[in-house]
Amino acid sequence: MAVNLHIPSEAEIFPVAGVEIGVTEAGIKKESRKDLTVFKFSPGTAVAGVFTKNRFRAAPVQICESRLQAGHDIRALLINTGNANAGTGADGLERALTSCKALAKELGILEEQVLPFSTGVILEPLPSDKIIAALPQAINALGKNEWLKASHGIMTTDTLPKVSSKQIEVDGRTVTFTGISKGAGMIRPNMATMLGFLATDADIDPELLKSLTLEVANQSFNRITVDGDTSTNDSFIVIATGQSGVQIDSTSSPHYETIKAELTNIARELAQKIVRDAEGATKFMTIRIEDAADSEEALKVAYAIAHSPLVKTAFYASDPNLGRILAAIGYAGIEDLDVANINLWLGDVLVAENGGRSPAYKEEDGQRVMNEAEILVRVSLGRGNTAETVYTCDFSHDYVSINADYRS
Amino acid sequence: MAVNLHIPSEAEIFPVAGVEIGVTEAGIKKESRKDLTVFKFSPGTAVAGVFTKNRFRAAPVQICESRLQAGHDIRALLINTGNANAGTGADGLERALTSCKALAKELGILEEQVLPFSTGVILEPLPSDKIIAALPQAINALGKNEWLKASHGIMTTDTLPKVSSKQIEVDGRTVTFTGISKGAGMIRPNMATMLGFLATDADIDPELLKSLTLEVANQSFNRITVDGDTSTNDSFIVIATGQSGVQIDSTSSPHYETIKAELTNIARELAQKIVRDAEGATKFMTIRIEDAADSEEALKVAYAIAHSPLVKTAFYASDPNLGRILAAIGYAGIEDLDVANINLWLGDVLVAENGGRSPAYKEEDGQRVMNEAEILVRVSLGRGNTAETVYTCDFSHDYVSINADYRS
Repeated sequence: MAVNLHIPSEAEIFPVAGVEIGVTEAGIKKESRKDLTVFKFSPGTAVAGVFTKNRFRAAPVQICESRLQAGHDIRALLINTGNANAGTGADGLERALTSCKALAKELGILEEQVLPFSTGVILEPLPSDKIIAALPQAINALGKNEWLKASHGIMTTDTLPKVSSKQIEVDGRTVTFTGISKGAGMIRPNMATMLGFLATDADIDPELLKSLTLEVANQSFNRITVDGDTSTNDSFIVIATGQSGVQIDSTSSPHYETIKAELTNIARELAQKIVRDAEGATKFMTIRIEDAADSEEALKVAYAIAHSPLVKTAFYASDPNLGRILAAIGYAGIEDLDVANINLWLGDVLVAENGGRSPAYKEEDGQRVMNEAEILVRVSLGRGNTAETVYTCDFSHDYVSINADYRS
Repeated sequence: MAVNLHIPSEAEIFPVAGVEIGVTEAGIKKESRKDLTVFKFSPGTAVAGVFTKNRFRAAPVQICESRLQAGHDIRALLINTGNANAGTGADGLERALTSCKALAKELGILEEQVLPFSTGVILEPLPSDKIIAALPQAINALGKNEWLKASHGIMTTDTLPKVSSKQIEVDGRTVTFTGISKGAGMIRPNMATMLGFLATDADIDPELLKSLTLEVANQSFNRITVDGDTSTNDSFIVIATGQSGVQIDSTSSPHYETIKAELTNIARELAQKIVRDAEGATKFMTIRIEDAADSEEALKVAYAIAHSPLVKTAFYASDPNLGRILAAIGYAGIEDLDVANINLWLGDVLVAENGGRSPAYKEEDGQRVMNEAEILVRVSLGRGNTAETVYTCDFSHDYVSINADYRS
């Protein structure tokens, strides 16, 4: 039961010149399921990515990082669901490399020009033979209008596909931004989340694209959490094919801010879609921490609230048991926090002021906001001028059911 | 459905000379419920405590800390359930102080000799009038054999009372240790958990008792977690009446180690009982991290595993989906962790070695351990010689039900 997750129609999804996608069934975990996706990029495309900080980085993540770092011209992505190829050691690396090599051969490119991505169960061997056997079908299926199919092809416990698309006019030229994401559990991206792919036909300098990708991730995929579990496979990739002719060479390029803002908006939308479709989610919560001394402490408090099982179950119950939010603020780890300066709002309702229950607060006002499907929790720390926002969801019976049954 | 929680019979619970307890009904939140408990100590009793590090410390916690710090001879405890008196500001402090003053008057002691404790809902005013009105009944009920009744009197969402008791012989004298605890949710004690009270008739130097209490807490209440939510009211109190005549004046006293070991054992048992009766728990899990460089990193890894909703739901399902444990180890925050040195056991089964699935591991072996009610997760980090152990439970539908319904 996703929360207000908009799925655009085919007509609302704009292809990105220079990007072709092919989706097929490789039978990786289950039969008759789209589980293999290939992206092919035209020459001159710039690609940048950010990846999980989990020390148990999956084999494909290790390969992506090293190939991007080496500066290879990336020309293709190879994405499978049904198996994460994580916790698989040297054998896992070997299977990922073999799969990339097979795709490179089929496409007539170098193996270093392929980036691999996997998502699914950890600690089980990747069936690379099945992947390699299905590559010709995937290549045969390559087309420019396959974004919606790809958004289905990368799903695991997602109930709905996640795709966002937009066109803007810059200097009389049309620039397109289209992206997909997946993920519903094991979500606390710490660089980015498995999997987000965002393409534009803007012509962005490759070095600039690296820093831009990190900035975009920090305002989107790095600001969501479902269960606090940082995946072994988180990957967020930005692709710039350049085919619109709109050039962005540096942060002082005339359209840099415009392009950055659009990339950030689409990435945030894709990230929020993950939260809207989070395992068992019935509410979409925006946690905004204001008047913090710095970004780090604002995020500490935001994540303490967003991860508290007690806060999340209260929201699931639409119960304004808001002392649980104060408790989470209190244990967030700010040693010198003076609670006497703390104010808490639920939506537009002032719940606590100066660290205690507001005299004006009435339970029915809290209840009114709690009954909504989208809720803003706003906290003022009274320590400075920094604000941060994190997106999360509630914690329901269905989350337990889904994760108690996931492998069966 | 608690996991192997032993409730001793009346005959197995030894009174502690110098301690009297009275339990009554004050109607704080619900009628006809034992919700008010008074402890009275004989002159010469030493009392020490450790308290939550949550910055939103409840009013009673603030009073306890300041009275213990000032070195007052503590002669009574006043404990209520049904209301946490947290997030209540100056008014909450006033209500706690007034209640203590009334008890002191009834007992003919100074108000500074009373320590208050509250547990229940946060952010609601303490009904101190009801507490004060019920004090004469509580005092009338004072007796030496009321430990079991007190263990009931401090329960909130606990399904079973938690009491442990033991006698040992030292130099031909009998020394008694008896304690109670409560708690089932909002449990990640960070000094100790609301509420643990442990009394002995050993004669322990008051200054020594302070450091000893901290050491004991660090091996018991500070090593459990249910949901990672550190309460605003955590309090662990050790009481030494001295009436056995066994003197412990310093760490070099001949029986110091014996008494410390027994205090630690009983405290650990009381702490584990909280996990055994945790909200919705169906499994009791011991997370042991070995070969860590230091205690801090061992605890980081242990708590990352113990808090992961994905690990906890897999245990609830008895599903050996053990890659989730590797993911938690990977995101625990050890920057330079080399996963190639990591081994993981489930009970006696080697699951992962050198960071990957063990070639000898068979799913049915993992399944066999997963079917047990008490499970040991053991991780070797291969970085040093420090080990730490944390106790936790699984995450079930009932946890969600209990916390979605708690206030109703």
